[in-house]
Amino acid sequence: MDARALWQRYQNWLYFHEGLGLYLDVSRMRFDDAFVESLRPKFEKAFADMAQLEKGAIANPDENRMVGHYWLRNPDLAPTPELTQEIVQTLEQIEAFAEKVQTGAIHPPRANRFTDIISIGIGGSALGPQFVAEALASDFPPLKIHFIDNSDPAGIDRVLNHLRNNLASTLVLVISKSGGTPEPRNGMIEVKKAYAGHNLEFAQYAVAITSPDSNLDKVAKKEGWLARFPMYDWVGGRTSEMSAVGLVPAALQGIDVRAMLQGAKEMDDATRVADVKSNPAALLALSWYFAGNGKGEKDMVVLPYKDSLLLFSRYLQQLVMESLGKEKDLDGNTVYQGIAVYGNKGSTDQHAYVQQLREGVPNFFATLIEVLEDRQGPSAEIDAGVTSGDYLAGFLQGTRQALYENQRDSITVTIPQVNARTVGALIALYERAVGLYASLVNINAYHQPGVEAGKKAAAGILDLQTRVVAALQKEKTPVSLEELAEKAGASDQVEAIYKILRHLHANQRGVVLQGDLHKPSSLTVSAG
Amino acid sequence: MDARALWQRYQNWLYFHEGLGLYLDVSRMRFDDAFVESLRPKFEKAFADMAQLEKGAIANPDENRMVGHYWLRNPDLAPTPELTQEIVQTLEQIEAFAEKVQTGAIHPPRANRFTDIISIGIGGSALGPQFVAEALASDFPPLKIHFIDNSDPAGIDRVLNHLRNNLASTLVLVISKSGGTPEPRNGMIEVKKAYAGHNLEFAQYAVAITSPDSNLDKVAKKEGWLARFPMYDWVGGRTSEMSAVGLVPAALQGIDVRAMLQGAKEMDDATRVADVKSNPAALLALSWYFAGNGKGEKDMVVLPYKDSLLLFSRYLQQLVMESLGKEKDLDGNTVYQGIAVYGNKGSTDQHAYVQQLREGVPNFFATLIEVLEDRQGPSAEIDAGVTSGDYLAGFLQGTRQALYENQRDSITVTIPQVNARTVGALIALYERAVGLYASLVNINAYHQPGVEAGKKAAAGILDLQTRVVAALQKEKTPVSLEELAEKAGASDQVEAIYKILRHLHANQRGVVLQGDLHKPSSLTVSAG
Repeated sequence: MDARALWQRYQNWLYFHEGLGLYLDVSRMRFDDAFVESLRPKFEKAFADMAQLEKGAIANPDENRMVGHYWLRNPDLAPTPELTQEIVQTLEQIEAFAEKVQTGAIHPPRANRFTDIISIGIGGSALGPQFVAEALASDFPPLKIHFIDNSDPAGIDRVLNHLRNNLASTLVLVISKSGGTPEPRNGMIEVKKAYAGHNLEFAQYAVAITSPDSNLDKVAKKEGWLARFPMYDWVGGRTSEMSAVGLVPAALQGIDVRAMLQGAKEMDDATRVADVKSNPAALLALSWYFAGNGKGEKDMVVLPYKDSLLLFSRYLQQLVMESLGKEKDLDGNTVYQGIAVYGNKGSTDQHAYVQQLREGVPNFFATLIEVLEDRQGPSAEIDAGVTSGDYLAGFLQGTRQALYENQRDSITVTIPQVNARTVGALIALYERAVGLYASLVNINAYHQPGVEAGKKAAAGILDLQTRVVAALQKEKTPVSLEELAEKAGASDQVEAIYKILRHLHANQRGVVLQGDLHKPSSLTVSAG
Repeated sequence: MDARALWQRYQNWLYFHEGLGLYLDVSRMRFDDAFVESLRPKFEKAFADMAQLEKGAIANPDENRMVGHYWLRNPDLAPTPELTQEIVQTLEQIEAFAEKVQTGAIHPPRANRFTDIISIGIGGSALGPQFVAEALASDFPPLKIHFIDNSDPAGIDRVLNHLRNNLASTLVLVISKSGGTPEPRNGMIEVKKAYAGHNLEFAQYAVAITSPDSNLDKVAKKEGWLARFPMYDWVGGRTSEMSAVGLVPAALQGIDVRAMLQGAKEMDDATRVADVKSNPAALLALSWYFAGNGKGEKDMVVLPYKDSLLLFSRYLQQLVMESLGKEKDLDGNTVYQGIAVYGNKGSTDQHAYVQQLREGVPNFFATLIEVLEDRQGPSAEIDAGVTSGDYLAGFLQGTRQALYENQRDSITVTIPQVNARTVGALIALYERAVGLYASLVNINAYHQPGVEAGKKAAAGILDLQTRVVAALQKEKTPVSLEELAEKAGASDQVEAIYKILRHLHANQRGVVLQGDLHKPSSLTVSAG
């Protein structure tokens, strides 16, 4: 296609949202009109499915749940007045709480103000808050946030060590729907212990974000924590950034949560339009379908050309892959769906893996994110008439062009600046695109059965550990791994037992392994 | 395969490096003996190629360069006594410099000590130092490092703003082989300006890491910068962590660079063995070849179960994709090689995209990285007999098992703890694996022609900007984009010009766009 025809195609397909100043360009996805036409019936169904979902239909049939994250930014859409009221009141409570913390009306026992936040959560309870903090927190926010998002003891120690002089002015958010997910539970127990070690009463520093009447909620209520905010069963973790999960940490950091909600609402309105060409989420879903043949045959590489959007790719990785990565479709057929997502930021990544994107395996399509505003205030010139922001813009255009010339497709999203409203809009855009794409390929985007399977497998290992240690403690003399496995009633799990013992041994946990480490089956083990 | 047979396979293939305490397990890659046998001739050639490379052969024929990063950790291997001496002396100079900075023998004009570092570099000059800082810097290092690794004005402002009260005690590293790469050059110019704005004389804070006699080197010499350290043309950016590029920032942060080099040397020794089964790098290359059919058909997902190794996947993304992502093989055939790499950390990612890994598109193999030591010092129990580290270990085992049960292959690398020696070993392990794999698939792992192409494309856009702005300034009345394109002698680049103008307009750079933003071709533009 020559330059003039391409320019025509660019304009034909260009989407522009005037209120948000947001552009979406899918002209470098090389679909043709016949392809678009062929998807029309699927899109009609997708739009109808989405309308039903927004009205409160059970869109997550496996878990018998409504899917209501769209209501969070437009509470009038919620299917009952009670739900509407709850959303509105929760937002007001979040803002009131954040203001009191910032002014010092709520303050810790031994300080006038809270200065820091430890946010304990994993998955949807971490990635949204992390992305938004990185994108939107000011350089010197009223409270500085730190994340514990894993069950890694050394990682927890690092956060606590950094804060050791500030713990008495550090607020703790515990974010967990059930309170039973091991990572946040372990993080909470470790952090509680650290507070106790500093003679600080944890409850006076702690805030729970959890399902009403979960175990965590009950503990928080009983112990008199600073505050409790609700998680709803109609909001999935990966779409919870606009619920208390995302809004509480954002508001505490001084981020304009109303603007974030407003941006999301505007985008929701725009992506409700039942016409592919004038609906940016539908244009994304169309492009994804085209790229991967409706089967995820191409990876989605996300390249925001703006440092503060670095975590957007990781956020999308969760949103897209957890939603779309499914074994079964809605009719029970085995389909192995999904789209792999990765990326960091441009132009940095041009000096890393973009070499492969340009020349190597053509197993991807790119999404370039452009931010028109270079910085707050004017830029000095680097060369005559050229700023560092011009370079960044040039790198983006150059990369898009070089990819296209090598038959690598790309999408470009352009926003005027990184602010609460545009970030809210980006989140909403991709949430809707994922929902529509899921309809196109006929899967449930709102459950995550594989995560449950993984939790069970891990619980099985911990249970095995308990049995093995109990069996070992009965032995007076060293035994072989095979013998110990048999005594623990797990003779078919020697390998898992070997790894458990190796880990306990390395941490001086009363397990001694002896023998030739090259040959695990030669090892003997004893308690000691 | 039943549990007993799997346990046997595990032991058959287990690699253990006694000195490093490092294990490599490829038993869950489902290759058979016939496959291994079939690759024997390729491996014989790969081992021979590698031996030649280490002896100083021109292993990067396109650029007529030797490839010598292995010499950095064993200088006696360098092909000439001069090179050996240069490597040894540079290391001594780095250590001496770092010590003087830490003790205050070298200090800034207005402070007793340097407290912070701004490291300006991109690609190989950023990712290695970032990974190593995150993995190895203590919680309160002697100097705290900050990175400028992009040409993003807002990103640069953020770093400088965070340091605004400390600039007078902040050391600046400028890392650029030629000094001409735009991102570090732009970063340096912006930072220089900030120092001038604080009435600080940049040269008294600046250190150059660059090719001897590059433009940057000349400037640093002329202006009397604090120090200059060499980059060698026989070390590529993505394998430069053990050169001054990585060692200077590491040493300044108090990281034991000799231990890092020692770990790499031990691993280099181990991966020089010309026998697949007893060479861990060969086992990795074998596994990669098996997974992707020697064509990169499967993505490599890297999951370190340790927060401090978070950036290892991004480091590997560069090392693997920039090395292997090539259009042509060494015989000039078009091959579109490469392996896509992504990942963050476990168990965090189990609550994000691992849903898709378990159940969705089977287009990947996983690499799990296990660290045996949970933390420094003992752990409290979370449940009876169970620590948060046991959970993490359980998650790793559970995920590996669940993946295998769903026919998803995985590799597990186990290290005793995260320290300078094991991190050096990990880097060396993957450097060698990439080198061997490149031989297996007959490509040059040491050039990056696509990066050059991208730089040219971007330079073309900046050149076009200059011409367009010049043409616009001659116009007295608004002109259409098409007219302006013609006057700038670029009538086939209307789209690129539109984007240039949109960016300039958004930044108040003397360009005014008027008309319907939905329809770019309807816009008129004027200087103003």
